[in-house]
Amino acid sequence: MSRRSLSVGDLFESARNGDRGALARLLSLIEGGGTQAREISRLSYPLSGDGYTVGLTGAPGSGKSTLTSSIIRHLRALHQEVAVLAVDPSSPFTGGAILGDRVRMQDHATDRGVFIRSMASRGHLGGLSLATPEAARLLDAVGRRLILIETVGVGQVEVEIAGKADTTVVVVNPGWGDSVQANKAGLMEIADVFVINKADRNGTDETRRDLEQMLELGDLASEAWRPPILPVVATEHQGVGALWDAVLQHRAFIEAAGELARRREFRVREELREVVARRLEQRALELTGSERWAELQLQVVNRTVDPWAAADEMLKAIDD
Amino acid sequence: MSRRSLSVGDLFESARNGDRGALARLLSLIEGGGTQAREISRLSYPLSGDGYTVGLTGAPGSGKSTLTSSIIRHLRALHQEVAVLAVDPSSPFTGGAILGDRVRMQDHATDRGVFIRSMASRGHLGGLSLATPEAARLLDAVGRRLILIETVGVGQVEVEIAGKADTTVVVVNPGWGDSVQANKAGLMEIADVFVINKADRNGTDETRRDLEQMLELGDLASEAWRPPILPVVATEHQGVGALWDAVLQHRAFIEAAGELARRREFRVREELREVVARRLEQRALELTGSERWAELQLQVVNRTVDPWAAADEMLKAIDD
Repeated sequence: MSRRSLSVGDLFESARNGDRGALARLLSLIEGGGTQAREISRLSYPLSGDGYTVGLTGAPGSGKSTLTSSIIRHLRALHQEVAVLAVDPSSPFTGGAILGDRVRMQDHATDRGVFIRSMASRGHLGGLSLATPEAARLLDAVGRRLILIETVGVGQVEVEIAGKADTTVVVVNPGWGDSVQANKAGLMEIADVFVINKADRNGTDETRRDLEQMLELGDLASEAWRPPILPVVATEHQGVGALWDAVLQHRAFIEAAGELARRREFRVREELREVVARRLEQRALELTGSERWAELQLQVVNRTVDPWAAADEMLKAIDD
Repeated sequence: MSRRSLSVGDLFESARNGDRGALARLLSLIEGGGTQAREISRLSYPLSGDGYTVGLTGAPGSGKSTLTSSIIRHLRALHQEVAVLAVDPSSPFTGGAILGDRVRMQDHATDRGVFIRSMASRGHLGGLSLATPEAARLLDAVGRRLILIETVGVGQVEVEIAGKADTTVVVVNPGWGDSVQANKAGLMEIADVFVINKADRNGTDETRRDLEQMLELGDLASEAWRPPILPVVATEHQGVGALWDAVLQHRAFIEAAGELARRREFRVREELREVVARRLEQRALELTGSERWAELQLQVVNRTVDPWAAADEMLKAIDD
């Protein structure tokens, strides 16, 4: 029996029965977008919702991947299953898959309780910002209820993706490298839990004070969650238990306060709007064969019409 | 006379007459999107096209900003004017504007031949990927004909922006940090010129060999441009003249081969398509007040309909 002949529905059933190969193929189809991705979305959607997503982000070099590996080890010691989506060009998956020179995560390669997958946006209409939540819902729907989403903490899309998890962990280092320094504002905004990784180095106390000061400036309401700041040495597996406890505390907090449901509803509405926009974009693409489009393009190329005016013209043509 | 009362047209005229404050205000309006941004686009578009854009990208910490500063110094010694757009959360501008703790670029702060500006996507419908080329066209239209665009070399949007310049310089370091290692593929694709910055450190030769090997793998056509690899120590202002010569050689090469015109035409077509998509997105937003939309949202929140199916429903409603 050739696997190629399996339908999306067959693959989905196999994945639900624990077939990792089928799950991997479904994730590839999601990355590729297209009608099969939509079919997967249709199958996953009603079965998802019980899962919990934890975002993990920080500058390249902050040790996110080592930390992810250490969190997996912690969870496996508790006999808990976990799935990881790596949306990070500096991740051993995303990068390593291409270059074959990274092995860190292979510690977990033979453990059936762990499923790890890098995400790339190969043709998905909404790029990573739509492909990633769809991938997370698929994992959820096939029974992988705890999903870590590792993203690089630089870049418009990537920071947003991490910020859309149920709990978001922001990883910094003692001394705040130049790069992190500058991106503070964006990362502060999405952090539910701070990790100071490489906390055996100088500057950990200063970094903690720095973060605390920024949290003070944030002027939180007294009943709001205050992001804890946890020192970790991921390479030595130190502090990871306390970090995970903080994640669980945050989860309990937002569940009790009704905040989780509110966040998720808000995210669904945002996603729906984005999907509508992408569908409209597709429609715009379909128009690019028209004569009027070719004319307008030429006018824009020749600088007799600017792109926004040309777009208005094009939209009028859609309505006619 | 209050500046607030000036129209976009007045600001544009002032900027063309060298008023830096007016130029800065116009750039803020572009970032904000909205009707004034479109008016600026309309004014700039026919007057632009003579300018030349140079993208400069690399991982955080690779020394892009120091290199930019060093390039500015080189150009000023040649009495050449230059404008810089920093689309980079780790840039002293983007970051420094928020945190006020960076001074590197202030070397050039009082030089009227230099105009430096950080870009953020504050409400622009197309985000940085549309706001940046519009900003570059404005600079071009008001007479700033050489524009450096510094972006962080991680992140979907940011790498794309650098890749859309006329000449793209990719900055790496000896030893390739973990982060750069992984992002090689994306950066290799857009590079017209490679810089090994911090070339006074160990590992420069290995990095050069590494890059050369990857270029071999790229299997270039014999008549194609082969990206040169230039060692630079930006902190010491070493090698920057040779780097700039390579940029000029690349420019001469693509101009002679007709490649520049082809690249620009392709980019214009791409941009037009993106603008149409953004306009359609805006239309989708306008629909969010409707009753049908509210119903569909609720169904998606309750998981009885998936987002893509809901989007299809919504689009049907647009057509009716």
